[in-house]
Amino acid sequence: MNTKIIRYILGHVLRIEAAFMLLPFIIGLYDHERLTFIFLFVSLGAFLLSILLTFKKPDDMVFYLKEGCVATAASWLLMSVVGALPFCISGTIPSFTDALFETVSGFTTTGASILNEVESLPRCYLFWRCFTHWIGGMGVLVFLLAVVPLSGGSHINLMRAESPGPSVGKFVPKVRHTARILYIIYFVLTGIEVILLMCGGMGFLDSAMTSFGTAGTGGFGIRNDSFMSFTPYTQWVVAIFMIMFGMNFNIYYLLLFRQFRKAFAIEEIHYYLLIIVGAVAIIFFNIRTMFATPFEAMTHTVFQVSSIISSTGFSSADFNLWPNVCKVVLVILMFVGACAGSTGGGIKVTRLVVLIKTIGKELKNYIHPKRVSKVKMDGKPVEHEVVRAINVFFITFMIIFFTSILLISIENYDFATNFSAVLATMNNIGPGLNLVGPTSNFSFFNHFSKYVLMFDMLAGRLELFPLLILFHPGLYIDTIKSKNHRRKNKG
Amino acid sequence: MNTKIIRYILGHVLRIEAAFMLLPFIIGLYDHERLTFIFLFVSLGAFLLSILLTFKKPDDMVFYLKEGCVATAASWLLMSVVGALPFCISGTIPSFTDALFETVSGFTTTGASILNEVESLPRCYLFWRCFTHWIGGMGVLVFLLAVVPLSGGSHINLMRAESPGPSVGKFVPKVRHTARILYIIYFVLTGIEVILLMCGGMGFLDSAMTSFGTAGTGGFGIRNDSFMSFTPYTQWVVAIFMIMFGMNFNIYYLLLFRQFRKAFAIEEIHYYLLIIVGAVAIIFFNIRTMFATPFEAMTHTVFQVSSIISSTGFSSADFNLWPNVCKVVLVILMFVGACAGSTGGGIKVTRLVVLIKTIGKELKNYIHPKRVSKVKMDGKPVEHEVVRAINVFFITFMIIFFTSILLISIENYDFATNFSAVLATMNNIGPGLNLVGPTSNFSFFNHFSKYVLMFDMLAGRLELFPLLILFHPGLYIDTIKSKNHRRKNKG
Repeated sequence: MNTKIIRYILGHVLRIEAAFMLLPFIIGLYDHERLTFIFLFVSLGAFLLSILLTFKKPDDMVFYLKEGCVATAASWLLMSVVGALPFCISGTIPSFTDALFETVSGFTTTGASILNEVESLPRCYLFWRCFTHWIGGMGVLVFLLAVVPLSGGSHINLMRAESPGPSVGKFVPKVRHTARILYIIYFVLTGIEVILLMCGGMGFLDSAMTSFGTAGTGGFGIRNDSFMSFTPYTQWVVAIFMIMFGMNFNIYYLLLFRQFRKAFAIEEIHYYLLIIVGAVAIIFFNIRTMFATPFEAMTHTVFQVSSIISSTGFSSADFNLWPNVCKVVLVILMFVGACAGSTGGGIKVTRLVVLIKTIGKELKNYIHPKRVSKVKMDGKPVEHEVVRAINVFFITFMIIFFTSILLISIENYDFATNFSAVLATMNNIGPGLNLVGPTSNFSFFNHFSKYVLMFDMLAGRLELFPLLILFHPGLYIDTIKSKNHRRKNKG
Repeated sequence: MNTKIIRYILGHVLRIEAAFMLLPFIIGLYDHERLTFIFLFVSLGAFLLSILLTFKKPDDMVFYLKEGCVATAASWLLMSVVGALPFCISGTIPSFTDALFETVSGFTTTGASILNEVESLPRCYLFWRCFTHWIGGMGVLVFLLAVVPLSGGSHINLMRAESPGPSVGKFVPKVRHTARILYIIYFVLTGIEVILLMCGGMGFLDSAMTSFGTAGTGGFGIRNDSFMSFTPYTQWVVAIFMIMFGMNFNIYYLLLFRQFRKAFAIEEIHYYLLIIVGAVAIIFFNIRTMFATPFEAMTHTVFQVSSIISSTGFSSADFNLWPNVCKVVLVILMFVGACAGSTGGGIKVTRLVVLIKTIGKELKNYIHPKRVSKVKMDGKPVEHEVVRAINVFFITFMIIFFTSILLISIENYDFATNFSAVLATMNNIGPGLNLVGPTSNFSFFNHFSKYVLMFDMLAGRLELFPLLILFHPGLYIDTIKSKNHRRKNKG
């Protein structure tokens, strides 16, 4: 394994984080907040460390999927630890585990919090908390690709390891160019949301922080009650943007290049919208009498459905009190998740559509064993290799899912709490049911359970394998072997 | 589709059921139970119908997988309806839906009951209820193959559609011979259990009924408290037999032919036992202080673990009151299920082992993309086609699973109840958690939910596809097309 290039990438990631940390510092300066200097110190420390790490450029700049995965997983771990330091040092979140949980939850765009009270946080800390969503939404390595010239090497292996969903392949030829365009789309959409929210009477910074949470499909709010006390206008704007950020970014890419027909023909987005309509219909029918007017019921329904399917996790109402069938619909939406190639989490619509189509194919095979049929997406047959990868993903997902439930159930909370806590973290949603419902938080779990849930958040965000690979002994055995081999050759 | 042969098979299945129904009739006669004559009438009715159905032998005796599946699914539906009639007519279970639920639960060896009180049932009805487990455990079509000369045709397609797990292929060459040997093993093991139970002081009929429930891994008990009031001796005997009936019958087959080395080398059985040991260790550690002596705690632990993993569902203690980590272990065991080629339900140990091995292979691929490795079972590489089928099975399982939860959650019971009700029926276990826990039953569900759960029981027992195929429009379209085609050719 090329460990030098991993070190080099880590250095660059750290430098980007150091730069990003200056933003909350500036806001804190403006607010005359004494605690803001902690951001400056941490940023400087990170910068110095990054210089050390990138001082010597590796001779061999080529790296493969293995290095891409390790670099990605290590970057996210490092980013989270460094990002947690300000909370921890300032005492806004005294326990390191809690601070790390909050930061991992931020970067992975989960939005599961351990804070009972966010409105009393200094604004610069509130900003940093929301900003982690925005950074994590598109991915810091994609950012790295967009701005840092990593000459040589197969960029695609970095991007593939970090981007949600199995659809990056399409952009192969010009990774760097694509990374830039993706960030521009991301930036512009976020900007439009900020403006629309400001039109509704929200202040600039509040709008920005809310938009960061929406754009990254994160879910950290700026109020203690999440979205319950906002106006219907604000709720609708955010609801629509959550749906938009949950869409495959291919649609914006294609629209940008005026390929309208292609853009509106993306099959995954059709299913995504269809699922939204179906879920809205079921939930609206069941909660229509719980609110004063049908409009209010519809607002909360649409808000909650788009919040959950996009894996954002804002809540405009306490869905824990809704009829059970609504909760099950939301649980299913948590599994489904957003589109591949969006900032959202979950299993992803494409994967599920392909899986369901394979079931149809299997049944057809029972009826006509001799006819060969292939699963198709967007009119094209899906490669056997893609189907296989999706199958393995699904199975790995389920095994990590139930193992995590087992591990956190040692604490003896009820089944629905454990089930939905893992569901909400692994799919990067945020709130779950019962004790981790929209009006509660994750603070009551012990440290062990919190680390399990952090693992789930990272595993979900990085789509399992880049993180899992760190636990495979083969990775280390081979590295040691090749080092010994090199030493022998030298000696 | 060859509908004539399906009719012919249905006729034979009905005749076997009519014959089996004479057993409870005889017991009722001995007991001077007036209601026993209902068995005679239903049996006679079924016999007459079977004569009508088998009167004309089909010209074309060949049938394919499609016909095998349809015949199997239709047989199980017919058997259940006819088997429910005595309960319904006698008024022991007045509602037809409830009677059908109880019978489907019996034949599918689930053991989920709608009865609050079983001890007051006439003994012939109690016997019939337990006997359905024994019939369903090995499968009535396998019985058919063993006793009825179905000349021509590919028997394997019937057996494949009915037998649990993906391992029937091994017996291909002499299906009929194998079916007989399997029934002999089944019969002998049941007999040994009866004798051992009688040694513990249980009466002959009670021992037989208990053994039927164990052998079929069913779970209908003869007492209202299932196994709580039996002696430790009886509990241990049943616990060990539950483990044995959850093993791949290949082991007995091989032992019978003195291939000891091969028998003890079956990989699936190693994992099965390993899982049992692991689960026992975790649960014992957590409940050891809840009972008077460690021996008592161990008895209940072993009993409950073997009852759940073998998908039997007897209960010696109310595990609903155990710590949550124990309940999660039991939930995971419910998914795992017994070995393929046993009478047990669940996803099956082989399938899960293969799935987990594919994950390991996937991780290795990330590290060494160029090395080609194959998943192995019992030292032999697993065919690509088998892996694919297992993947599709797992995905279909999960989709039916969550759809069922959604459907029954319309009734607004809590999540753990709905989740475990579907879990316990689809894996043919019996009891679940909360409202469907070991001391409760399924009677409170409405008719709609009961039909959903019946579907799940049948889907679980028939391993999904033979039942699902009935819902595929392609099946009917093709049948109509080919009929029209034949009519045209005649005309």
